[in-house]
Amino acid sequence: MNYSDRLADIQPFFVMEVLSRAKALEREGRDIIHLEIGEPDFPTPPLVVERATEFLRRGEVRYTPAAGLPELREAIAKYYLDRYGVRVASERIFVTPGASGAFLLAMGLLLNPGDKVLLADPGYPCYANFVRLYGGTPALVPVGAESRFHVNSEILAAHWDDRTKGAVIASPSNPTGTVLYPEELNALVDEIERRSGFLIADEIYHGLEYEKPSPTALTYSDRVFVVNSFSKYFGMTGWRLGWLVVPADSIDNAEKLAQNMFISAPAPSQYGALASFKEENLQELERRRRVFQDRRDYLCDQLRKIGFSLNTIPSGAFYVYAGCSRLTSNSLDFAMGLLEKTGVALTPGKDFGKNSPETHLRFSYAVTLARLADALSRIRRFVQG
Amino acid sequence: MNYSDRLADIQPFFVMEVLSRAKALEREGRDIIHLEIGEPDFPTPPLVVERATEFLRRGEVRYTPAAGLPELREAIAKYYLDRYGVRVASERIFVTPGASGAFLLAMGLLLNPGDKVLLADPGYPCYANFVRLYGGTPALVPVGAESRFHVNSEILAAHWDDRTKGAVIASPSNPTGTVLYPEELNALVDEIERRSGFLIADEIYHGLEYEKPSPTALTYSDRVFVVNSFSKYFGMTGWRLGWLVVPADSIDNAEKLAQNMFISAPAPSQYGALASFKEENLQELERRRRVFQDRRDYLCDQLRKIGFSLNTIPSGAFYVYAGCSRLTSNSLDFAMGLLEKTGVALTPGKDFGKNSPETHLRFSYAVTLARLADALSRIRRFVQG
Ligand SMILES: Cc1ncc(COP(=O)(O)O)c(C=O)c1O
Ligand SMILES: Cc1ncc(COP(=O)(O)O)c(C=O)c1O
Repeated sequence: MNYSDRLADIQPFFVMEVLSRAKALEREGRDIIHLEIGEPDFPTPPLVVERATEFLRRGEVRYTPAAGLPELREAIAKYYLDRYGVRVASERIFVTPGASGAFLLAMGLLLNPGDKVLLADPGYPCYANFVRLYGGTPALVPVGAESRFHVNSEILAAHWDDRTKGAVIASPSNPTGTVLYPEELNALVDEIERRSGFLIADEIYHGLEYEKPSPTALTYSDRVFVVNSFSKYFGMTGWRLGWLVVPADSIDNAEKLAQNMFISAPAPSQYGALASFKEENLQELERRRRVFQDRRDYLCDQLRKIGFSLNTIPSGAFYVYAGCSRLTSNSLDFAMGLLEKTGVALTPGKDFGKNSPETHLRFSYAVTLARLADALSRIRRFVQG
Repeated sequence: MNYSDRLADIQPFFVMEVLSRAKALEREGRDIIHLEIGEPDFPTPPLVVERATEFLRRGEVRYTPAAGLPELREAIAKYYLDRYGVRVASERIFVTPGASGAFLLAMGLLLNPGDKVLLADPGYPCYANFVRLYGGTPALVPVGAESRFHVNSEILAAHWDDRTKGAVIASPSNPTGTVLYPEELNALVDEIERRSGFLIADEIYHGLEYEKPSPTALTYSDRVFVVNSFSKYFGMTGWRLGWLVVPADSIDNAEKLAQNMFISAPAPSQYGALASFKEENLQELERRRRVFQDRRDYLCDQLRKIGFSLNTIPSGAFYVYAGCSRLTSNSLDFAMGLLEKTGVALTPGKDFGKNSPETHLRFSYAVTLARLADALSRIRRFVQG
């Protein structure tokens, strides 16, 4: 069989190796602490489960309109007004199978073969692969602590060339947890518009912020594409539900593509998600946010004491991207050795790009404080040999 | 904004116009009979709802492995053995967000820009758009009653050229409901293998067959890509769950792509689907199949009496693709007029390709016999002026 050329450029995730070894150890009876995980440890909020169950009981689980249930699109529009003070017409909101589906849709709308798309390195590895899927060229831009691991307007300007069509940004970022400040985001949006490029802003970790809540990119322009999801802040990973906000003149095209690619997002998830925006649920999410914040404070403090370097504040998401150059020059070996010896699973830097991955490790704090403390003392013992 | 060139080639579905006019009429209080629908009218089988609800009650709705829950993949493998007598290793089965997701995955694996893919015309319109999504070129092959609206091995050979990389077939077919016979399928599989091309066999309407059950393409080769879904026979459209069977040497590539594109299929749907293969559920599905069969017999008979032509037997799915040349030379106008005057909604031939669409209409029999009878007397009055 002749496979597509794009497959040669798509790497499997190293964390899968970690995970499969972790599972093998668990089968042998070892206690593994999972700090490699990319999803909240909280269960789906009860109101969401209840609403979905109610819907299922009727048994009428049909295709929904391709863009999503009108009432869910309206609830999301209202959320933009309530949370950010930004008016977004519900017609611009496309409900998708996760943020993953939103990226499939957005890049399908925007990319032609050969188009270059700027991406922060380190960054979420799927962005580059979505670009490759459509024959585009991911342009990885090395970013560091100086710019809080973000592509800001100056960095963007320095890397933009004739073939560049746009950029993807994520704030708070995976794997770094760092945020773009409002004025930086504003400047970035302006810079891209000046160049008539597109901006896809991944706001999936909005809500999980521990200094100040971020503004949405929609605050500064109604020409940006905004991706969001019920996975992280709303605690609904396995439900596979997200959304894409498109400019008004993209609605028809987005509709056409969504019909073909997805038919619709899962109906039980859409009904469940209707309960996400209830005051009682938002209060529960705020409690969870504070739990994450406590874990973050503790984890950052302890990691520094062990000898990891944290030159920026991870102000959001549930990740710390720690420098480990004082402890190892090969973070993948370090992660594998740590897992083998102590049962603590981490994600090696290699999964996030080519910018010094061998001296970085991602710690996820989607485990309880007690488990985090246990993990940290295991790591301390491992490091002290 | 500069949109992707591929959008220019993707047409919106005409049935959406029909549907939106039908909804407007319903808001005015008109009674609309929906024969344009592409999903079964039965509710999700109770055992599936029960199993999903049980899963939701625990609240632990996480990402699953990218290829799907191991127990679901094994249940599907067992289904191939029980139903078709074919052994398929569960590792070759990828659980996807609908057959739609299976096509996104399969074409992502197989297509390079410029590759030609043979498709039956009339056919399911999304196939061509999946091909375009990845920069491929859909080659529509006109087929008629002589080949039961299928691309058989002779037709394939006549249309294959240097740029052709493979073909998509669907039996039973949407919109025609016709099937490829086992020996035709076998010859087609052989012919494509001889040419080192790929075959994607869409078996989504398997199970909904009213003459003989079809063999799976996997009977004849383990090199074919087979798409299937819980949407139609299993009655789970809104759950968005399907699967793709890949050749053994494609497993790693499929895994890489699925991780990036979907992360995973919806977890509640996967747990629910586990109940699909229980004997009690399969018996319920058999009862439903027989109900479809009665409707088909009645519909075909009545349509002929009204003056539609049916030169083949629609032996599967829940569609009849009727010739209307004795009644109109513009099936879109006919459908719009029929809707306006009588409240019966149909899908015009235009949605299924360029092969005499103006003299064909698709009738779906996903409504009760009583409603079908009502629709047919309305159509009779309309036709008689
Ligand atoms: C930055 C980022 N974007 C998008 C996604 C995709 O999430 P989902 O498809 O579950 O919404 C993830 C998942 O980990 C992520 O970390
Ligand atoms: C022939 C055919 N293939 C694939 C699909 C996609 O179905 P799903 O994504 O719901 O599994 C459909 C839906 O109507 C269809 O008719």
